[in-house]
Amino acid sequence: MNTHLKIGLVGFGCVGSGLYEVLNKSGLLGATIKTIVVKHPEKKRSLPKEAFSYEVKDILDDPEINVVVELINDSVAAYELVKRAFKAGKHVVSANKKLIAEHLDELLALATENQVSFLYEGAVAGSIPIIRNLEEYYNNDSLTSVEGITNGTTNYILTQSNFGVDYASALAQAQELGFAEADPTLDVDGFDSKFKLVLLIKHAFGLSVEPNQLHNIGIRRITEKEIAYATEKGFRIKLLSRAEKIGQEVCGFVAPHFVDRTHPAFEVNNEFNAVIVQGLFSDRQLFLGKGAGSYPTASAVLSDISALKFDYRYEYRKSDAGKNLQLSEQFYLNVYIGTPHAVTLEEAGFEEVYESFRSRDYAYKTGLISFEKLAALQTNAREDLAVIVLPGALQKPELVVAESANVEFNTH
Amino acid sequence: MNTHLKIGLVGFGCVGSGLYEVLNKSGLLGATIKTIVVKHPEKKRSLPKEAFSYEVKDILDDPEINVVVELINDSVAAYELVKRAFKAGKHVVSANKKLIAEHLDELLALATENQVSFLYEGAVAGSIPIIRNLEEYYNNDSLTSVEGITNGTTNYILTQSNFGVDYASALAQAQELGFAEADPTLDVDGFDSKFKLVLLIKHAFGLSVEPNQLHNIGIRRITEKEIAYATEKGFRIKLLSRAEKIGQEVCGFVAPHFVDRTHPAFEVNNEFNAVIVQGLFSDRQLFLGKGAGSYPTASAVLSDISALKFDYRYEYRKSDAGKNLQLSEQFYLNVYIGTPHAVTLEEAGFEEVYESFRSRDYAYKTGLISFEKLAALQTNAREDLAVIVLPGALQKPELVVAESANVEFNTH
Repeated sequence: MNTHLKIGLVGFGCVGSGLYEVLNKSGLLGATIKTIVVKHPEKKRSLPKEAFSYEVKDILDDPEINVVVELINDSVAAYELVKRAFKAGKHVVSANKKLIAEHLDELLALATENQVSFLYEGAVAGSIPIIRNLEEYYNNDSLTSVEGITNGTTNYILTQSNFGVDYASALAQAQELGFAEADPTLDVDGFDSKFKLVLLIKHAFGLSVEPNQLHNIGIRRITEKEIAYATEKGFRIKLLSRAEKIGQEVCGFVAPHFVDRTHPAFEVNNEFNAVIVQGLFSDRQLFLGKGAGSYPTASAVLSDISALKFDYRYEYRKSDAGKNLQLSEQFYLNVYIGTPHAVTLEEAGFEEVYESFRSRDYAYKTGLISFEKLAALQTNAREDLAVIVLPGALQKPELVVAESANVEFNTH
Repeated sequence: MNTHLKIGLVGFGCVGSGLYEVLNKSGLLGATIKTIVVKHPEKKRSLPKEAFSYEVKDILDDPEINVVVELINDSVAAYELVKRAFKAGKHVVSANKKLIAEHLDELLALATENQVSFLYEGAVAGSIPIIRNLEEYYNNDSLTSVEGITNGTTNYILTQSNFGVDYASALAQAQELGFAEADPTLDVDGFDSKFKLVLLIKHAFGLSVEPNQLHNIGIRRITEKEIAYATEKGFRIKLLSRAEKIGQEVCGFVAPHFVDRTHPAFEVNNEFNAVIVQGLFSDRQLFLGKGAGSYPTASAVLSDISALKFDYRYEYRKSDAGKNLQLSEQFYLNVYIGTPHAVTLEEAGFEEVYESFRSRDYAYKTGLISFEKLAALQTNAREDLAVIVLPGALQKPELVVAESANVEFNTH
């Protein structure tokens, strides 16, 4: 099929207005926006007042409109809107990662019931076609890991920090450039990266998880001490969404990582995102593109719209395999923990300590720790701990116990 | 559909034997190799003699076999084999870029006629899923350029050269590592990169071109003088397959390029390949993975086999748009030409000269030149000219004429 698409657009911010320009003025994609619904009539916009509606029913009740493009910030309102759109028999394109991470299975069931598509490439890693590749190219259950820089705001801040700019200034810069929200909590505490990780785990492994099942460690507590440590060791700091399949378990979390020059994300700077995929039989692949800003999102939304012309929908081919998997926090990893309160490090519960440093005002340890103990530290909620993962594979407990007597850890 | 695939494998080199291990021992993909055909009975192999057949008819006449995986070097024999396989109603997976670049339209017609699939992800840029992405994700005619490092051998040699190893030693290393063939002509003169460019142009723009319509400039004439020039300017040298759509024309060629730190290929080293895709409405995307060696190819072949389980075939959705396009050599570009014979530079036909250097034993010029004049130099056939493209957009003649009076060229 090669349908002409009539679109109902909800939300007319940067992404929405860009879409309008491209679709209605270029005509290239054979899709046009028929109705635009916005919330606030009084806001100044690039189109005259008459171009807008203020009721979503103007879209939902219009039988000519076959696609709803949802581009609103409010994930609660978006949730209601998307459900109503499916029930009205309309395809939905969305880039709302929070909405999708929190309600994917329910929304999918509704989309399937109403025989419509639900596409959301723009929700993960901006312009990078990672969902599509996980669906189509890596369509079997041989993937072993997926990890990536999925948040442009924090990557911008960390890049600037690596180059010597302090956290507050880097955040202010990111806000000025339009990458960071006024309240940056979702970004800097790793929630946004976690929503994306939920979607990566679903499409890489077929496993459904809820955001609150995944632990996220943010970048807010990283100080000049950690930057100095990175410089000394030749590392850079990157906030990674990371999931590995080990046996029938998926280990997934969000945390800042020290990455060395051999890591594919080492040179991925500023607002760029990157996703690295590895399979049993496939070489490690890196996908790179811009992740923050309205343009990358618009580009992914356009690709979704273009795919709808060919009746495309995600097939979720790994869902059966995913039913045999479970999420696990039973693994060990190498971490750095820094703090002004040295006593805290005694309570952290390292399985093995590699390095220990202490001065009058700062202390850090590096070593092997169980993820459960690391998560129990609740680092986002306290102000005195910087946690950064060190290079090294995730290890299952049986291995750690078996080898702990005589093992060499290669941390740098 | 989710067919169990029975494979007839022709060729049992590194890729073929790796495939056998994965498919027949892991069982993961729901596909098994039933019959293996090889040419030389006397060759020592990892399986006993009884495991092999020596006649392709053992595959072609077997109604149980639904897929032929063609992994032989000889592109003439492969051409006959693939045609017979299609006529026998079997899907074909191949990584033979020369075969496909030279005969794609004919083979496609035959595959379509017999309602079978012809998949060849392994033919371009090793493990990178670029054909699939050009087909599926960039499914509309809004792409403007595709370029990439598509040959691992030459990238290995150039990387080593950038780091100070001379050409002959770097080539010997590449051969030792199994990246380069005993006769490296196809690689170092840019023919291999050109075969891949034919496929990129087909899937990016829908335009069918023949290999001999595209000009390829190789890396064989690059000397320590060019390496020194690169170092001085902060460039690295990369052999790029490059195609840009300007209006209704596609400008495509293979040549070594000086790339600066802002170019996404700058850090793509050794046996890695990378493809960079840019569209009217999409951000520049980079796809990175290993390009040389048997493992990356095997990984792409496996993905093709996996896709066949879901009856996948390339749709060539841009073919209609491609009929309105034509290949063009009517463009200008910035180049460096170096030679021991300064007089040659006088005859090169620069439109405008940016730099001119002359010593007792070497001379070079940089400047704007028409591609037709550059191609007429026939640099692969002579020993005294090193041609390397400088940073800058390709320019159509009308622009060059209009702006030549007062234009600033930013070459570094």
